[in-house]
Amino acid sequence: MNLFDRAQQLLEKFEIDGWLIPCQEGSDIHSEFMLDLEVHIRHYIFVSKDGNHRILTCTMEKAMVEKQLNNMGVDAQVEAYTSFDDIKTKLKPILSRSKIALDFGENVLSREGTSFAEYIPLGEYRALKEISPKTNFVSAAPIIFDLRTIKTYEDIQDLRETAKINLEILEDLPNWIKIGMTENEIKRKLEVKYLEYGGIAFPAIVANNANAADPHHNGSDKKIEKGVLLIDSGMKPHRMCSDITWTYWVGGEPSEDFVQAYQALLYSKEKSYEVIRAGLPMNLPAIKCREALTEKGYDHEKLYYHSLGHSLGFQVHDVGGGMRAKMPESYLQQENMVITNEPGLYWEGKWGVRLEDDLVIKKDGMEKLTYIPKDPLTI
Amino acid sequence: MNLFDRAQQLLEKFEIDGWLIPCQEGSDIHSEFMLDLEVHIRHYIFVSKDGNHRILTCTMEKAMVEKQLNNMGVDAQVEAYTSFDDIKTKLKPILSRSKIALDFGENVLSREGTSFAEYIPLGEYRALKEISPKTNFVSAAPIIFDLRTIKTYEDIQDLRETAKINLEILEDLPNWIKIGMTENEIKRKLEVKYLEYGGIAFPAIVANNANAADPHHNGSDKKIEKGVLLIDSGMKPHRMCSDITWTYWVGGEPSEDFVQAYQALLYSKEKSYEVIRAGLPMNLPAIKCREALTEKGYDHEKLYYHSLGHSLGFQVHDVGGGMRAKMPESYLQQENMVITNEPGLYWEGKWGVRLEDDLVIKKDGMEKLTYIPKDPLTI
Repeated sequence: MNLFDRAQQLLEKFEIDGWLIPCQEGSDIHSEFMLDLEVHIRHYIFVSKDGNHRILTCTMEKAMVEKQLNNMGVDAQVEAYTSFDDIKTKLKPILSRSKIALDFGENVLSREGTSFAEYIPLGEYRALKEISPKTNFVSAAPIIFDLRTIKTYEDIQDLRETAKINLEILEDLPNWIKIGMTENEIKRKLEVKYLEYGGIAFPAIVANNANAADPHHNGSDKKIEKGVLLIDSGMKPHRMCSDITWTYWVGGEPSEDFVQAYQALLYSKEKSYEVIRAGLPMNLPAIKCREALTEKGYDHEKLYYHSLGHSLGFQVHDVGGGMRAKMPESYLQQENMVITNEPGLYWEGKWGVRLEDDLVIKKDGMEKLTYIPKDPLTI
Repeated sequence: MNLFDRAQQLLEKFEIDGWLIPCQEGSDIHSEFMLDLEVHIRHYIFVSKDGNHRILTCTMEKAMVEKQLNNMGVDAQVEAYTSFDDIKTKLKPILSRSKIALDFGENVLSREGTSFAEYIPLGEYRALKEISPKTNFVSAAPIIFDLRTIKTYEDIQDLRETAKINLEILEDLPNWIKIGMTENEIKRKLEVKYLEYGGIAFPAIVANNANAADPHHNGSDKKIEKGVLLIDSGMKPHRMCSDITWTYWVGGEPSEDFVQAYQALLYSKEKSYEVIRAGLPMNLPAIKCREALTEKGYDHEKLYYHSLGHSLGFQVHDVGGGMRAKMPESYLQQENMVITNEPGLYWEGKWGVRLEDDLVIKKDGMEKLTYIPKDPLTI
């Protein structure tokens, strides 16, 4: 089943007449998600409940879109507009339906909010409202949630292959990282390797010692010294992103406190895995992980101040929420969600360690896609 | 003068109390533009007319933002929020000012529209409106236009250096491209080179023969054959993007019709340069270019269906409009605008050629940053 068919089924399920995605220069990621293609100039994708899908593009990009839809086996009418007035004329009959979904979120400043659906900008919304004042524009959040949170067989297969290559590259790091290289040199060299295999998922975090205590460290020209080297990076050769953090030791034998923290995190991860299974609450693995860290003598409230993991997929922080100890019990794990598992311990100004794996939630447990080394790799 | 000072001056000029930029996961490019940093989790930047700039971040990213502001010499108060309710509490006094600019466009479906300012999503706007119903939220378009269209000395210096490296890489292409490599192989290898020098501006277009007739060709696994090879690519090692298209000939002597089209385009570019100067209308170079193509016997209406160029800068298609023959005469060229010059000729299903340079508009003419080879390079 192609993506347009899947979206059409969801329109039927939610009783919405159509889903309109206006996009230009990547303003709405669902254009690339639906077309598997970057269309640059202003365009509109309309998935219709009745199957009469329409796409409006500029003249220059029409042929490219038609070819791609053909490759994907999607039956949709592609039309080129010639001016802004022509866009309005062509949108009017599309918008004449009574209930149309647009990509905006509701209650975005609340835990129950749907800010993951936030793409349509205010001015664009006002323009559509002016063309068709009576249309009931509703949030596309339920469509987006279903379409992106639960991964298909192909998505998971893509991620398996990507994870495999990514692990090989991480295993090879000790062969080329040297004391004295800068964080940015390592970042660039690693990203080049990812690009050679087809794509970078997000800017890599390369953090030595005190910088490793900053979970979102942005890279610097700090020269690598003896101690902790945290590398959080991922690839995107096809549609799916990997996202893996390994923490290495540079220069001789790892310090005792580092090894202890590393082993405590591995233990806390194992504990969290025991409660990863479709049907169980999303918060449970995070709670179990934190309990295990307490058991090992770590003050997790102070030393570990982020969630256990996030949804992973077409984007590195994908639609589908995360695993947080404090989220309501009513959020349940679902089969074929892909999620990261990444507890960390951080001593501000000193060093930090984070161990991140990617996994698929299954009916009877989980499938691990990546594997942290049992003992820290040394460089 | 740092960016916050420049924005503050513009707030005074336009009599606006402050400029609020809500952002998460790169949803508004002006966060990265203002901070020269990627902040991932939900955050708010508030540039205040009175100089009391404020930034709200999550706990985890606060230190990183503080450090960066310090490096940039920006005096702003950085606060971490602890929950959605805390965000609302902290935003309320900020939003209590009477007139606040947000990043949305007006009349976006018209030539006079400001869709370049479109970043705030509908749900986010509604949330702000709920916190502070009486605030007059106005479009930040005039601030963004001034801040980004006219480049600073540092921006232009950045672009000069970037263009120089980019040209060297393009000159080197004939040394490694071979018949039989695929378009995607060349794209990847070229992007790896760009990354080694610090960054890719946008996905490279690599198009052989019939694919070169599609100006936004997205790359394919087509093996390179004898004929035309169009490569449109750019680097972004620092803040500025380069954007250069060279069209090569693969395999022996270029065909006569290719050389003729190439020379006609070079001639049309030279003609357009004669009317590039601050104070002249933006449409004039495009008109002159098209007149020159007619003179050389090419039916430009049919064979060349895009604008002459676009603004270039922090983004590859930057704020500041383009050079189009059909735009109103009232749009004038301004000193220190950076613009591409990229006429093309396309024979659908056969081949195409486009020659793109980057240049700075000056008081008394222009500064060329890049140079197309006078005769097509052969591979």
